[in-house]
Order: sequence, then structure tokens, then C-alpha cells
Amino acid sequence: MGTILRGIAASSGIAIAKAYRLVEPDLSIEKKTVSDTTSEIKRLQDALTISISDLEAIRDKTKLELGEDKAEIFDAHIFILNDPELINQVEDKIKSESLNAEYALKEVTDMFIEMFEQMDNEYMRERAADIRDVRKRVLSHLLGVKIVNPSLIEEDAILVAEDLTPSDTAQLNRQYVKAFTTNVGGRTSHSAIMARSMEIPAVVGTKTATEVIKDGDLIIVDGLKGEVHVNPSEEVVQQYKKEQIRFEEQKAEWAKLLHEKTKSVDGHEVHLVANIGTPQDLEGVINNGGEGVGLFRTEFLYMGRNELPTEEEQFEAYKTVLEGLKGQPVVVRTLDIGGDKELPYLNLPKEMNPFLGFRAIRLCLEEQSIFRTQLRALLRASIYGNLKIMFPMIATLDEFRTAKEMLQEERQKLISEGIQVSDEIEVGIMVEIPSTAVMADLFAKEVDFFSIGTNDLIQYTMAADRMNEKVSYLYQPYNPAILRLVKMVIDAAHKEGKWVGMCGEMAGDELAIPLLLGLGLDEFSMSATSILKARAQILRLSKKEMEDLAQKALQMSTTNEVIAAVKAVIEK
Amino acid sequence: MGTILRGIAASSGIAIAKAYRLVEPDLSIEKKTVSDTTSEIKRLQDALTISISDLEAIRDKTKLELGEDKAEIFDAHIFILNDPELINQVEDKIKSESLNAEYALKEVTDMFIEMFEQMDNEYMRERAADIRDVRKRVLSHLLGVKIVNPSLIEEDAILVAEDLTPSDTAQLNRQYVKAFTTNVGGRTSHSAIMARSMEIPAVVGTKTATEVIKDGDLIIVDGLKGEVHVNPSEEVVQQYKKEQIRFEEQKAEWAKLLHEKTKSVDGHEVHLVANIGTPQDLEGVINNGGEGVGLFRTEFLYMGRNELPTEEEQFEAYKTVLEGLKGQPVVVRTLDIGGDKELPYLNLPKEMNPFLGFRAIRLCLEEQSIFRTQLRALLRASIYGNLKIMFPMIATLDEFRTAKEMLQEERQKLISEGIQVSDEIEVGIMVEIPSTAVMADLFAKEVDFFSIGTNDLIQYTMAADRMNEKVSYLYQPYNPAILRLVKMVIDAAHKEGKWVGMCGEMAGDELAIPLLLGLGLDEFSMSATSILKARAQILRLSKKEMEDLAQKALQMSTTNEVIAAVKAVIEK
Repeated sequence: MGTILRGIAASSGIAIAKAYRLVEPDLSIEKKTVSDTTSEIKRLQDALTISISDLEAIRDKTKLELGEDKAEIFDAHIFILNDPELINQVEDKIKSESLNAEYALKEVTDMFIEMFEQMDNEYMRERAADIRDVRKRVLSHLLGVKIVNPSLIEEDAILVAEDLTPSDTAQLNRQYVKAFTTNVGGRTSHSAIMARSMEIPAVVGTKTATEVIKDGDLIIVDGLKGEVHVNPSEEVVQQYKKEQIRFEEQKAEWAKLLHEKTKSVDGHEVHLVANIGTPQDLEGVINNGGEGVGLFRTEFLYMGRNELPTEEEQFEAYKTVLEGLKGQPVVVRTLDIGGDKELPYLNLPKEMNPFLGFRAIRLCLEEQSIFRTQLRALLRASIYGNLKIMFPMIATLDEFRTAKEMLQEERQKLISEGIQVSDEIEVGIMVEIPSTAVMADLFAKEVDFFSIGTNDLIQYTMAADRMNEKVSYLYQPYNPAILRLVKMVIDAAHKEGKWVGMCGEMAGDELAIPLLLGLGLDEFSMSATSILKARAQILRLSKKEMEDLAQKALQMSTTNEVIAAVKAVIEK
Repeated sequence: MGTILRGIAASSGIAIAKAYRLVEPDLSIEKKTVSDTTSEIKRLQDALTISISDLEAIRDKTKLELGEDKAEIFDAHIFILNDPELINQVEDKIKSESLNAEYALKEVTDMFIEMFEQMDNEYMRERAADIRDVRKRVLSHLLGVKIVNPSLIEEDAILVAEDLTPSDTAQLNRQYVKAFTTNVGGRTSHSAIMARSMEIPAVVGTKTATEVIKDGDLIIVDGLKGEVHVNPSEEVVQQYKKEQIRFEEQKAEWAKLLHEKTKSVDGHEVHLVANIGTPQDLEGVINNGGEGVGLFRTEFLYMGRNELPTEEEQFEAYKTVLEGLKGQPVVVRTLDIGGDKELPYLNLPKEMNPFLGFRAIRLCLEEQSIFRTQLRALLRASIYGNLKIMFPMIATLDEFRTAKEMLQEERQKLISEGIQVSDEIEVGIMVEIPSTAVMADLFAKEVDFFSIGTNDLIQYTMAADRMNEKVSYLYQPYNPAILRLVKMVIDAAHKEGKWVGMCGEMAGDELAIPLLLGLGLDEFSMSATSILKARAQILRLSKKEMEDLAQKALQMSTTNEVIAAVKAVIEK
């Protein structure tokens, strides 16, 4: 007895509670002919008005509890309901075909959904999901049906759903929701990100959770192993209660390391810093013992809006982060847009291979006014803390030289305008393109630091799109080829007295950390919530032994050999 | 007086002749209502029938003059005119809307063209061009208008066109057409490939040729510099006549090297071989002094058809090539499909980044029956010549080992079936993924040879889609990062006593050859028509001096420095 579902461990921890199924309401509709189309349009407009006010309330609540950036999705939803291109078509349909509002809404939105879904573009496919989400709300008001409202949960519960939409998660009563499990999604899906940000366990991609689990079933979500136990035996429950205590104890143990330095047993110190996207993330960095920011992804300042952020808006954001970290280093990556990250208002050309396309520094060197505005904002903010600027997607020395020249030009302009600029700003680059790793010895003479972006470096080195399931087996962080490139970069930097960080997923990975320590990495930048665990791990490792491990790994021929060797070391 | 247009030198040589403009006929049509839709459909069917018989004639002529593979495009055109999905829609439109056939055809094809053009896919966009081409022909028959027929040219002429379609080029009277110039296109466009295959000069991408040039203008096409002179002065004409003689003399000079070995002045021998796509290309290899085939792109056997080629069909093709080369080496690359090369009948998933996707060996290792059929055909053909098998897109040693194991299994099966198989087949890999170059030392212990595929290697190393204009500046063959990877591969191979070839564009490039000779490349594989020129160049170079040049280039920081250094050496 007791069923075990396996999925993807999306957020760590263990939760034991009753299941609360987020069941879809019955929104089935019929095609009807209406005689009074004017009042039918009025009915539509009323439903839209209520839906918009719902969404505004949800947005405000989200903003308060989860921060501005998490709330932005609801602005997008409100935007959809205000979009004349969509709404006029629904009204026209009601009028010209004497249709009921529900059916007209369904027909028009179906067309938009289909159009977006057929696009070969992750971003646009997400827009299809947004329309579905918004339509559900409007239909529920038209039909007078209540959509499930997780904010009404009033006892400890584990949410079970096909998937969690942004509006679902925003409405959660966070006091009672102890974990999520969903049928679909991966580690980077919305529900996974939300779970980590709420620091509750989650297992996503179970495929069958909503089929197998009934309301009120006792559920264990094991966010460490990626398992969901449905109506487990008492023995299993007891076992997990112990496990849960162990995990909480471990977290408490890790919390003691909050203000510790990160030194190996033989005294080698490294720096553990955080990846952030917005000023709201600062709190997490500080609460989790981050020694600074190794990657501030500035593109979030540009997303979820309809025009470029002004110099002033950017200046304020950078200043907030720099001041918040009180002199600890903040590495700001200049705009990395393009690829899978689009800005609708920039009208970028559609590309056959966006990951190999016109993005990041390539775009910035051409769209100089966008780039120079950002550089000015950064330079102005530089006096409020310890700013380091890094350029993404640098493939050639020419690109770096050109970008740095623009930075110097903006600095001179500001100085001649009488504006104060720090003269201690380090200028470095992301190493995420193979050519740059191979040329690291020459780059090292000109940059102040490197930050290795493993997500892209692995993808290009293996020539495998990390988002493409059919070739995801080639996304191999421990492949000796990747380790060799990392070593090339670190050795080259150290030879010139420069430091090297890493800001890809790999830097926070338990299996990679021993190798990276052995290869001599100076700065590890990761999700804030991974920092204490990483610190605890490094405190137990010997730099010398990890050097030996890394040396051996460099000569291995496959990823599996490397993984086995690392496991042998960390499990001993 | 005299205008000079600049474009892309697509096929070398110099031609001086009068302009013949391939002007578009007036195919403007009106929307009409017809009362007798049955006879209107009959009119459409007649036009289709005549068009198909036109196309069959063109196809047969092309096959005879240019070979099977060049003729395949017309099968595709005939296929379109037989496609019920398209034709039924036109007929329905005539019937249901009482439309004239011309207008119905235009409306339906416009829809298909728009659909294909909006796809983010080179292959599908070309289908849009095919539909346009075919429609022109059907409309001309419906309207009783003659479309320009270049087969009627009866004096020396230089064709001037917006672009040349496959049917245009197939109809050319090759005796009189001395050169092409077009407004659009690049080095790999259809018209460029045709010009090289016909060995006549061509300058494409002039943008304005059809605007500037009038029928009967005197034209000089300089396919060496990429210039078109319109009504040049007598002085320029005389100059070009001398130039033309020099070029012909040089070709005659090169022709003397047909049976020569390719040795540097200090006696270092390398091998010059050809890239081919079909057995028809053999003649060119032999006529141009190729010492074998360095790359037989087998995917052409799979393209332009509706189902996979059988083992027997493949066996025949491989046998023909192996026998034709009489014991000279033939390196056959196993199926490299996916990426920009699609097979409609395989129903491959649509990918966001096809160049980083499920292609080549990745597909073959999963679609084993396709791969094993090819391996069996190759093994059976192996006794007819000097076969070497190479796997494309190898990123890890695991992939190579798995592929080689399948080859061994098929060999054993054949032997146990009593079929003879050569036991001297070398098995190697393409090095076109950075990870493989970086791991070349370990690969070198297990493969028999490497062939460096620079087109892809450059694209992945620089993370820049070579088809994407916005980032084409990053397609840098002479970037020191590329040279370093090439050196890594060559050194690793030589250390294990293995040989290294190169089969990308770079191997036949005048600026790259000195560097590659210096780096120790053993085999240069290129378009057959480039072989004699490359041989002439290498005969003049000193291996020792090129080694020094290459050593210096490896320490340079930019592509431009390398280019300058090479030019200084070859121009001295």
C-alpha cells in the first residue's frame, strides 16, 4: 500500500500533509444565439471589469508578499484584458454573429492561443498560457462559476495540480501551503521557481499526480529525492518525520555558517556570492550569508514593460543594490537580451538559431544608445558601493575592447559634466563562448576578472541546446572538455594576477564544487538559497585533495567517469 | 562614363559580352466572376498539364546536362503541381466563389507562400520560392503569355536578373551564356552554385543590376573581384581582355599540375581531395586532379525524395564512387541530417535552435534502423575501393564508441551472412564541435583519423550562426581561437600516429592554406574546382616558413592581425 510518484526535485525539503487538489472548475460552454447583442456586450464588459479588478488585487498582494518582479506577470494579464485587438474582435463577433459572450470569447482567444502556440518561440508560447489563464477568470465571471481559490485553504495542505499558474501561486495562503506537486514542469518552470522563492518543498513533472491523488489523501513531498508518497504506511511517515527533523537540523546547522568565511580544511579561502535579478533579491542574499553578488542579471529591469528603462530608473536600481550590500562586491552584467530572452518593444529580428544569434554584447555594440544609457547609469551608481561591470557573450578581443572603450567614453563624459564616478570599477567579461575560453591567456592581460557562465559555455562547447529535450543528454557540466576549458580560464587569469568567478548553475552544484575548488576557482556565484549548503561542503573539503581529483578528472574520457570519481571523494 | 556595380564574386573568371535581361513577363491578373466553373476548372487543369510537361522536359534536359542531383528540384516542382492539398483548394475556390482560375490560383498560392515565408526556417522559405516559380509557369499558360526563355539566346550574352531560379538556369543555352549577374543571392545561393558547376563567372548580390543594366549594354563580369562593369570605356575593355587572357593562361598553367603531387618547396607532401555530394560529382574530381574524396556528403542520397533510400540504392551509390576512384581514398560521412538540412518524410521535431539540436550522429544513434541500413550499405561497398567511414557531430567519446560498436555489429552480421567486407576500413570522426577538439588527445587513441569540419567548428566556437547576417562578422576562420583548436587536433592526432584532414570551406581558402600547412594538416578537402589552384599555391610555399607563420598567428589576439600576417607572407 502507498504509491510513490517520481518527478523532478524542484525545491528542497520535506513536507507531510493532506492533499488539496487545485481542480479545474467546470467552464464548459455552449454556443448560443442572442437577440440583444448590446446587452451581451455589456455582460462581457462587466466580466472584464471584475476580472481586471480581481487581477489588480492579486497583483498588489503579490507585490507586497513576493516583490515587484513576481507581480509583473499580472500587469501582463491586465494588459491582455485591456488589449483592444483582442477585445474588439470578441465584441465584433458577438455583434456580427449574434453569439453569446462566452462562445465569442472562446473562439477569439482560441485563435490567439493557437497562433502563439504554433510559434517556435518559448516566450510566445508562454503568452498562450497567459491568455488561457486570463480567459479562465473571465469565463468564470460570465458563467457565475467559482474558480478554485487556494487562498481559502485554512489547514496545512499540499497543493496538487496539473501545473500552477502565476495567479494560482499568488493567491496561496502561504501560512498553510506546505508543498506543491504538479504533473508538468521542470526545474525552471514557474511553479518550481515560486517554490524555491517561498522556501517550501516541491516535486514537479510527476505526470500523474492529479490522477493518482485524491483530496484529503495523506501526502509526503520529498523535495530532496523528487518523490511523492501517496497514503504512505505509518512506518514511512515516521521515517520521513525523522528525515524532516534531520533536514531542519541541517538547515539550522548551515545557518550557523551565516557569517563564516568559506575556507577549505587546509585553509584555502573562496568567496560565495549570489546571482540576483532585481533589488528585491537583496534580502535573500543577506539572509543566506552571501558575500556579495556575483551576477546581477540586469535584463529583468528591461522585461515585463513596454519601453526601455530610463537612465534614472536604472541608476536607482543599481544604487539600491550597491548600497544594500554595503561595500561587498556587486558584479553587474550588462544587458543580455536576445536568445531566449526577448524584449517585444525592441522588435528584434526573428532568428533561425537565437542561441547563436544577435544577443547580449552583439546587440549592445550595435544599439549603442541602449548600451550607453546602461553604462551611464552604472557609472553614476558606482560611488555607492563596490561595483564591477561585466560584459556578456564576449567572443573576441575586438568586442571587449570596443565595449570597454564605450565605457571609458561615458566615464569621461560624466566627469566632464561634473558627475562623480568611482575610479575603482573592475571591468571583466563572462566566459561563456568557447573561443574566449581558448583565448583566455590573451584576454587575461586586458580584463580585470573573468566570470565563467557555464550554462552557455556547456551549450556551445557541446553544440547542444540546453532547452532541447532530444539533446539534453549532451548538457554535461562534468564533461572533461568543460573542465579543461574551465582550467584554461583559471590558469590564464591567475598567471596575470586576475580572479575568476563562475555564475552558471554549476557553481552551486554539490558534484561540481569539489572539482571547481580543485581547479582553483576564486568566486562561486549561485542562488542565494544554495550558499550555506555550499559553504558547509567546502568547509569539509581539502583543497589539496581536490586538486588531485581535478587533475585526474581532466584526463578522464567521459562524464560518467568524472561523476563516479567525485562521488567516491564526497561520499567517503 | 561606365558604371561599376559591386557584388559577391560567386564564380571565378572574366566574361565580356552584351547584356541579356531576364525580364519578368507581365503576369498581372484581374479578379473575374465566371459563370461556367466547370470549364474554368478544365482550363486550370490544362494549364497544369502543360506546365507539368514543360517541367518534365526541363528536368530531363537538366539531368542530361548537369546530372541527377541538379534535376531534382524539378521533381519537387512537379510534385507541387500534383499536390492535391494545393490544387483542390484552387478548384474549390473556383467552384465556391465562381472565380477565374488565375485569381483563384493566386489567392491559394499566396496563402501557401505567406505561410512558408513566415516560417523561421531556411528550407521552408525556399519552398515558398518554389511555389512562386511554379505559379509563374502555370499563370503564363493560363494567360497565354510567353515567359522569357533564355534557351532562345543565340549570341554570346551575359544574363542579368533579379535572381536565377532553377528553371531559368536549366533552360540556358550554355553555348552562349558567358556569365551571370544578379541583384540578390550569396556565395551559396542557387545561381552561384550553378555558375561554379557550369564554370562560368558570376557576380551575385549586386542589388541594382536589373535597374542599371539595359538589354544590349556591354558588360564585363569580373568573377575574381566581384565587379560588374556596365558600358565600360574601350580602355577598360582592353585591360579586361588582357586580364581574361591571363586568367585563361593561369588556368592552363594549373591544368599542368593535374597529375602532380602536392609538395611544399621544402618537400613536405600533403593530399588534396574533393568534397562531393553524389556519384555525378566524380568526373569533376578526376578532371581537377583530386587525389580522392575527403568528404562524401551522403545526405544528398536522402534528399529530394519521399522515403528513405534502400540499402541497395545506397550500396550502388557508394560502390560507384569507390570504383570510380580506383583505390584512391573515399571518406564517406554518415548521414548528417537535421539542423538546416531537413528530410520532410522523417517528421523531425521543430526545434528552437536546430544548429544545436537533434541532428547527424545524435539522430542516427536513436534512429538506429536508418543508421544501420547505411552502415550495411557502406560495409558491402567497402570491397570496391578504399573506403573510410566518418561520423559527423561527435561531441563525446561515448557517442563515438556507440557508433563504432554498431558498425562492428553490422560487420559481424554481414560476415555471418557470408557477405564480403573489407578489413581495412578506417573509422574516424568529424571534429566540428569544440568539446571534441578540446578532447582530441583522448579521441586520437581510439579513432583512425580526424576530419575537421570548419563550417560548424567556427560556428560553435564563436557561438554565431553562420547563416545569420547580424552575427556573420563573428564567422572568423582565421581567429586565433580556431587556429588553436585546429592545432590541438593536429598535434593530438600526430602524437598517436593518426592523420588529420579538413573538409570545411577553410581547407580551400587561399588565406587559410599557408596556416594549415604550417599547422601540419595532412589532407585538404575542397570543391573540386579549387584543387589545382590550391596545389599551385602549396608548391610555392615553404613548410618551415609556414610553421613560423602559424606559431606567430597562434599568439595573435585578433583575426585582422592574422589576416595581415598571412597576406604579408603570400604577397611577398
